[in-house]
Amino acid sequence: MTSSAVPAPKKVVLAYSGGLDTSIILKWLQTEYNAEVITFTADLGQGEELAPAREKALKMGIKPENIFIDDLREEFVRDFVFPMFRANTVYEGQYLLGTSIARPLIAKRQIEIARMVGADAVCHGATGKGNDQVRFELGYYALEPDIHVIAPWREWEFKSREALLDFAEKHQIPISKDKRGEAPFSVDANLLHSSSEGKVLEDPAVEAPEFVHQRTISPEDAPDTPTVFTMGFEKGDAVSIDGVALSPAELLTKLNQLGHDNGVGRLDLVENRFVGMKSRGVYETPGGTILLAAHRGIESITLDRGAMHLKDELAVKYAHLIYNGFWFSPEREMLQAAIDHSQAKVSGTVRVKLYKGNVSIIGRESPNSLYDQDLVTFEEGVQAYDHRDAAGFIKLNALRLRVLGKRDARDNG
Amino acid sequence: MTSSAVPAPKKVVLAYSGGLDTSIILKWLQTEYNAEVITFTADLGQGEELAPAREKALKMGIKPENIFIDDLREEFVRDFVFPMFRANTVYEGQYLLGTSIARPLIAKRQIEIARMVGADAVCHGATGKGNDQVRFELGYYALEPDIHVIAPWREWEFKSREALLDFAEKHQIPISKDKRGEAPFSVDANLLHSSSEGKVLEDPAVEAPEFVHQRTISPEDAPDTPTVFTMGFEKGDAVSIDGVALSPAELLTKLNQLGHDNGVGRLDLVENRFVGMKSRGVYETPGGTILLAAHRGIESITLDRGAMHLKDELAVKYAHLIYNGFWFSPEREMLQAAIDHSQAKVSGTVRVKLYKGNVSIIGRESPNSLYDQDLVTFEEGVQAYDHRDAAGFIKLNALRLRVLGKRDARDNG
Amino acid sequence: MTSSAVPAPKKVVLAYSGGLDTSIILKWLQTEYNAEVITFTADLGQGEELAPAREKALKMGIKPENIFIDDLREEFVRDFVFPMFRANTVYEGQYLLGTSIARPLIAKRQIEIARMVGADAVCHGATGKGNDQVRFELGYYALEPDIHVIAPWREWEFKSREALLDFAEKHQIPISKDKRGEAPFSVDANLLHSSSEGKVLEDPAVEAPEFVHQRTISPEDAPDTPTVFTMGFEKGDAVSIDGVALSPAELLTKLNQLGHDNGVGRLDLVENRFVGMKSRGVYETPGGTILLAAHRGIESITLDRGAMHLKDELAVKYAHLIYNGFWFSPEREMLQAAIDHSQAKVSGTVRVKLYKGNVSIIGRESPNSLYDQDLVTFEEGVQAYDHRDAAGFIKLNALRLRVLGKRDARDNG
Amino acid sequence: MTSSAVPAPKKVVLAYSGGLDTSIILKWLQTEYNAEVITFTADLGQGEELAPAREKALKMGIKPENIFIDDLREEFVRDFVFPMFRANTVYEGQYLLGTSIARPLIAKRQIEIARMVGADAVCHGATGKGNDQVRFELGYYALEPDIHVIAPWREWEFKSREALLDFAEKHQIPISKDKRGEAPFSVDANLLHSSSEGKVLEDPAVEAPEFVHQRTISPEDAPDTPTVFTMGFEKGDAVSIDGVALSPAELLTKLNQLGHDNGVGRLDLVENRFVGMKSRGVYETPGGTILLAAHRGIESITLDRGAMHLKDELAVKYAHLIYNGFWFSPEREMLQAAIDHSQAKVSGTVRVKLYKGNVSIIGRESPNSLYDQDLVTFEEGVQAYDHRDAAGFIKLNALRLRVLGKRDARDNG
Repeated sequence: MTSSAVPAPKKVVLAYSGGLDTSIILKWLQTEYNAEVITFTADLGQGEELAPAREKALKMGIKPENIFIDDLREEFVRDFVFPMFRANTVYEGQYLLGTSIARPLIAKRQIEIARMVGADAVCHGATGKGNDQVRFELGYYALEPDIHVIAPWREWEFKSREALLDFAEKHQIPISKDKRGEAPFSVDANLLHSSSEGKVLEDPAVEAPEFVHQRTISPEDAPDTPTVFTMGFEKGDAVSIDGVALSPAELLTKLNQLGHDNGVGRLDLVENRFVGMKSRGVYETPGGTILLAAHRGIESITLDRGAMHLKDELAVKYAHLIYNGFWFSPEREMLQAAIDHSQAKVSGTVRVKLYKGNVSIIGRESPNSLYDQDLVTFEEGVQAYDHRDAAGFIKLNALRLRVLGKRDARDNG
Repeated sequence: MTSSAVPAPKKVVLAYSGGLDTSIILKWLQTEYNAEVITFTADLGQGEELAPAREKALKMGIKPENIFIDDLREEFVRDFVFPMFRANTVYEGQYLLGTSIARPLIAKRQIEIARMVGADAVCHGATGKGNDQVRFELGYYALEPDIHVIAPWREWEFKSREALLDFAEKHQIPISKDKRGEAPFSVDANLLHSSSEGKVLEDPAVEAPEFVHQRTISPEDAPDTPTVFTMGFEKGDAVSIDGVALSPAELLTKLNQLGHDNGVGRLDLVENRFVGMKSRGVYETPGGTILLAAHRGIESITLDRGAMHLKDELAVKYAHLIYNGFWFSPEREMLQAAIDHSQAKVSGTVRVKLYKGNVSIIGRESPNSLYDQDLVTFEEGVQAYDHRDAAGFIKLNALRLRVLGKRDARDNG
Repeated sequence: MTSSAVPAPKKVVLAYSGGLDTSIILKWLQTEYNAEVITFTADLGQGEELAPAREKALKMGIKPENIFIDDLREEFVRDFVFPMFRANTVYEGQYLLGTSIARPLIAKRQIEIARMVGADAVCHGATGKGNDQVRFELGYYALEPDIHVIAPWREWEFKSREALLDFAEKHQIPISKDKRGEAPFSVDANLLHSSSEGKVLEDPAVEAPEFVHQRTISPEDAPDTPTVFTMGFEKGDAVSIDGVALSPAELLTKLNQLGHDNGVGRLDLVENRFVGMKSRGVYETPGGTILLAAHRGIESITLDRGAMHLKDELAVKYAHLIYNGFWFSPEREMLQAAIDHSQAKVSGTVRVKLYKGNVSIIGRESPNSLYDQDLVTFEEGVQAYDHRDAAGFIKLNALRLRVLGKRDARDNG
Repeated sequence: MTSSAVPAPKKVVLAYSGGLDTSIILKWLQTEYNAEVITFTADLGQGEELAPAREKALKMGIKPENIFIDDLREEFVRDFVFPMFRANTVYEGQYLLGTSIARPLIAKRQIEIARMVGADAVCHGATGKGNDQVRFELGYYALEPDIHVIAPWREWEFKSREALLDFAEKHQIPISKDKRGEAPFSVDANLLHSSSEGKVLEDPAVEAPEFVHQRTISPEDAPDTPTVFTMGFEKGDAVSIDGVALSPAELLTKLNQLGHDNGVGRLDLVENRFVGMKSRGVYETPGGTILLAAHRGIESITLDRGAMHLKDELAVKYAHLIYNGFWFSPEREMLQAAIDHSQAKVSGTVRVKLYKGNVSIIGRESPNSLYDQDLVTFEEGVQAYDHRDAAGFIKLNALRLRVLGKRDARDNG
């Protein structure tokens, strides 16, 4: 374990976006720690070009071999988003965990790079009040227990936004004009979602302004006619749209477009952070919102009741683990083992209708269907089910309640 | 407990709607059991006039003093719907339990009437394949353990719909023309919801036709401009709309109208019945859909994280209990005690926006708010939160993962 | 599914012990159903010779090729007992599920034999008031959905024990003298436990007499000096005693002997049956009681906290599933997947001390240990843990409670 | 909330045992903080005289009006121990939470005293590696959100035991001879239990020496004849022994004596601390071990199955809350509300047998008993239960498994 007297880190892998804040951090690592900085920039589908990040890093003196830019979109959807959606999990009844699920992958890749380049530290740009610092650092520590973690926002002495900008100016870090003034809110984005929080969103009594939304048009602006399509599933994962097989990232990208165009996936929420306070955020998860509904749809005909009800119980705890940053924990892996076990036959096709913010499942089909028309029909003839069995079923389910009713009548009599 | 050799019941309280099926049952009780029949017709907000039920009962020879017609709408919403909504509970992730929650009240009132009139039996018109028979009978047995329960659909010898209609004809029970042919689906309704199932809905691959919907217009037909209003809450229950205090049933009626007009609350679902098979239903819960969202909204600022997360875990089990008919069970009451305990400060106001099927919470305010702007703001100055605390928080949360990571590295090394 | 008009079964696989009751059933199947009977007798370690069962079956006209006598002890312990003990599961806080866990194996083997011989029915000797009928039949139906199940105790017309014995006499079934009078209690036994219930045990206020115990001597009669030994574990399963590798059944046999000799594993319990009533039983689980303690012991140093706490939560539900007969259900398999995932590193050695009914774990060692003396020691020097981290940990855990405390003070002020 | 620039505390309520460590803390508060110290010494049944604590405090200059010595034994058992035992809760399957449950009461009383004397800070003597610091401080913060908390063991600069003793010597704090050398282990005690940990217990592979035990004689040394007595319960709490009504603390004291004399309640355990590491402790909970068994015994005949099973699920989470210090949290109170609701009829009498470490429940009786001999008897005549009901019960429970079995056969076929 690290002690208070550990030697200063010499090589640091920084999660680097190329933006102002992580550029300041980069410079601060160079000046404060005198450390060799390795930048790592991930394409998680946040929708920004990554080429500028390389240029900026070079300009700030990072050696070309110390610049890592990775397209992690397929890994992100395949190994993180899809396993999570198998669980139908939502945090506090509503949030689809779009930010939470990206952090463990970034942490994992940073550690992999640290091993490749022989770095002894990692650094992230998450603030000291949020959940992301926890998610990054639990990932780092789980994967590399003795790594040195640098969290500049908890460490440095800058007392204000002004002080930060002064430091940037002093070190020739370019500041775009819109950063000079206060940004009206802060954003995180990846292929699963965009989140916005802070500033104009801080009063939960006030409606979120339209301009904070980035990934969806408003339901009001969406077309007046529905969009209908089919989604194919195999073993719990979506694999095709309208019969066209797609890779995980391609599929989520396509769902995002469909969701965006139909105003699907907006959420305005006050949530409870792991670090203890409530915060208000606006989330846009267009593709994920569709995926959740469609996955529930295919499960509804292919998953046994016992499995479904157990999943529903486990999903609450699962959400807490993801939200709190415990992706790389034995208990998350145990839950995943249970959930994945349930998905072996969750294959088939779902018809989805999008209309001005609504997602409706309007049809489900599967060769593995457990839905048996003979069992539910009001018609007779096929003797699949003996009504009289229900009498015994009820009698024995009632037995303890009857004994109880008699006891309580006796006591109160 | 009843034995197989119990004497035949002499007085039976029948849950009587006045419709064809329960009229046939009424006659069958008279002819088959030679029993004195007491009819009980409840107004649960199903939207039908009850006067005809009285007339029909009289025509079939029921004595006036044996006809009970009760308006239970306020009791229904106050003592059943609202306590359930305090739990934010949904069955299988989606169903708002609109049918399930009405059955215990009907059972309770039937038993009360049986005691008043000295009846030794109760009778319901639920079929032998459904959940409702279970819900009715668990209620009967819990409240009156030795009551004789008659479930005609499980007992009688009619082999087909034709045979039933012949019996009706033979006994001068009027059959409306549309009942001669096959009804295209079957309906249950109360103040909380309408459900439709069977026939045209039996193939889950086929979209539900527009004509099955009864309580909502289609989102496509809803107005092009949003409807915005506020809802007031006290201790977890909704008490007002736009500042106007309303009784529970008035409030739900008003929400139903708002939901209806904006195409809110449709659900097309394949669910797992307690009696073992899957069935497909179309539910419309306009007011309940709004109520759930608004209740989550007011809880989001007034409920502590620990309470909320525990509630989310309990809600899954709570839904199973309600769905399966265990309202009058010790375990449901235990969960209710826990849930109600949490609601003491869940008071305040929520702003709701409805638009073509969407329900959005766009503002929340409460004198009991736990949301603290000082704690989340990016701004500095007010030292409400020490960033450095987060370091220790993460370190100790990570400790076991680090020990684990070292162990596993050692084992694999 | 079976209908009420299914043809009578022609070949029946009977779970046959060779005792009086199943001999009567055998004869009844021959006389009542005119069916060809296949007898299946399992050695599950119940401690009875099986040769007489063959002879009796032959005498009753069963063809030699229709007599199946299988030693299932290794399969029982390896595939049923051990997986269950990985979960540390107990029913209602105390019962080690010794009867429950044997039923699925018998059901499974009966179905296998039915397939081999082309039988269309299976039959068991469990009564209509107990849990075992449920466990057998859920197993049958899960593995062979269309099998015809015969449960004589629920079907036949014998009204009393006398009537049964008369039938036996009439059909020349030998009745040992002690069966003529009333047996003072009834017994079930296998390698995991013996259970006794009924008759002299029916009043839960009265102490169980010493003579009902079969598998253990009384603690009072056990030696005055402790027995100490070690148990080796690999991946959650016990594999050796005092360093000697043993097969699963050998190991449990040895533990049973050790437990027996030291008066270990008695339990006198009133439990809740799945069929709805309370019953009182005396259980003796000598080896299992030791195994549970030792397994907890090895887990205590090799299992992570998160995994252990999740296991503890899952174990309650797991016990209900086993007790209620849902071994062959998706939800049991899901839980098993989670539990098994946790056991990969649960290897090492535990020292056990037995003394007059007590089982104490007095030492645990493992190459996979997560116990770190440096982390807990009061001594200083090794800086494995920074005390100051605890301050931040507490502060953030307290944050929501502080906000809450202020809110509630404000509201009450 | 406290900020980094809060003024130094002026008046501190110290949890003061009178022992060496808290005497050093007292002096350190005086010298380091220049604070007026209020000592609070609680009698929780730890078995030490409290008069010396007063004398020592006086000697160290504490004003008489600043010395609080309270007998909290009745409050401890009535309001903390008993509510916890209603839940039958154990941590990690074994630990009866004897230390955990005392901390909230000490915290509560310290805050009450702080309010009385107008103190602005509280101080405890728990170390920085343990759970107790968390339990104390979560209590303080929940009850008095802005209180200043002083945790000397996390703050001061003493680098070794020697440095501490030097400080003591310098300040004329008397050091008993046995404290000069290293204590071979450390102890916590109250009316519920004694715990021992550290030093000679640090290697979990080595058996705990006999001399660490303080509250129980060894089973080997216990009498050769059993002790049998009855315990009376009312609404879930023990109220009498052998028919003699006793107050909560009297009753637990008596049970402790009975347990002590019969070698009951020893536990040698490796557990997972909330702060992240594993630790090994020896616990002695003589009375509590008996109370748990007896409470389960009375519940076994008076508590409905649904209530019991729900309790068993809740008890796992409840234990985690108590262990981690969240007594004063909404979620603990919610669980308590559910648990307390279940106890209304948990009244009656249990016969208990103690023998050399064993606790056996050998009889239970209650006017509220749900045990119904008619329902379980093998005898016939009384037709309390229709065996044929079981057929339907099984059929409907099996239905989903049969549909599943057919599906899977089809898929694999």
